[in-house]
Amino acid sequence: MGLFITLEGPDGSGKSTQIRRLAERLGSLGIQVHTTREPGGTPISDQIRAMLLDPENSSMVAKTEMLLYAASRAQHVAEVIRPNLAAGRVILCDRYIDASLAYQATGLGIPLEQVRQINEHATDGLWPTRTYLIDVPSELGLQRAASGRGKQLDRIEQRDLDYHRRVREQFLQIASQESERIVVIDGTQSIDAVTEAIWQDIRQFL
Amino acid sequence: MGLFITLEGPDGSGKSTQIRRLAERLGSLGIQVHTTREPGGTPISDQIRAMLLDPENSSMVAKTEMLLYAASRAQHVAEVIRPNLAAGRVILCDRYIDASLAYQATGLGIPLEQVRQINEHATDGLWPTRTYLIDVPSELGLQRAASGRGKQLDRIEQRDLDYHRRVREQFLQIASQESERIVVIDGTQSIDAVTEAIWQDIRQFL
Repeated sequence: MGLFITLEGPDGSGKSTQIRRLAERLGSLGIQVHTTREPGGTPISDQIRAMLLDPENSSMVAKTEMLLYAASRAQHVAEVIRPNLAAGRVILCDRYIDASLAYQATGLGIPLEQVRQINEHATDGLWPTRTYLIDVPSELGLQRAASGRGKQLDRIEQRDLDYHRRVREQFLQIASQESERIVVIDGTQSIDAVTEAIWQDIRQFL
Repeated sequence: MGLFITLEGPDGSGKSTQIRRLAERLGSLGIQVHTTREPGGTPISDQIRAMLLDPENSSMVAKTEMLLYAASRAQHVAEVIRPNLAAGRVILCDRYIDASLAYQATGLGIPLEQVRQINEHATDGLWPTRTYLIDVPSELGLQRAASGRGKQLDRIEQRDLDYHRRVREQFLQIASQESERIVVIDGTQSIDAVTEAIWQDIRQFL
């Protein structure tokens, strides 16, 4: 069996950079790695991703958003994550169920237990072995997300600062409740320091 | 408060014809009617519908399909069904939760209670006052669906006869368990006779 690792945190926290660096380090040790992201990761999930992030879909209600994330995840788990785990690979995944608990439950006011239950159905109860939460102040994350891409913010990023602050608080609360699985990393450090912090922890699983 | 009526049955059972006729009759009595259908009924739900029915999406797993139907339904209930009910209209809806119980639960092997629970979350527990199940043998429904439209069968219709038979059996079983809500109509009768059978029952709610 492989190893299932997720990275969580707001846009602009540097998750994708860290995943690229971790994949390189693991690869240099001869370890087979598969990197992926949510929403997306399969052709069908990418169609759902496009719907979710399209600023034109401004009439989307909270439950629809939450169920679309779960649908995308169900496909991703079945088509990508489980087969790669079965093949013995290390999976580095940008966002997973914790993101739904933060962005759709707390962020949009859907009961947390409902979101958890639906996502457990969607994934047949597959949780990561380890999750790294890269924590940055919401203002900083949004600034980085806007400047780093030189493009319009997507439908989720466009939400106001208060929404993003609630999401951050929820991430930190989940991390404190599931401290066996989730490690909080200070994302205001240098990129090198964040990589090193994750690396020191991830080594124990290799 | 308005009145929420759904029609269920396989493709080719004549649901859309009956909805058109019922809407005309109700309209001629001066009753405000809104007709709609699932999956679809809103711009976002129609995007989901297109994904669900696209034969190209043949890799879609059962849970993804079920969650996409639920997502489409959540948007439809929030944006169309509840506002029209609140405005006092009669809603005639082509397919609803019972279709998911038949097509995704029994048809694809997802536990019935899981599908029910997710759909109750999606709709905040909104069930129709009355459901007409237009029952036809599966062979007949598929024949009519194929010939009536002069087009390629969609992703769901392409499933084999055995699948469609399981769906029919499940529809009939749900109807027997919920006989207070669901009325089974023999869909092998003439179009006029089907309309008349529904009309005789629906009158009591007007």
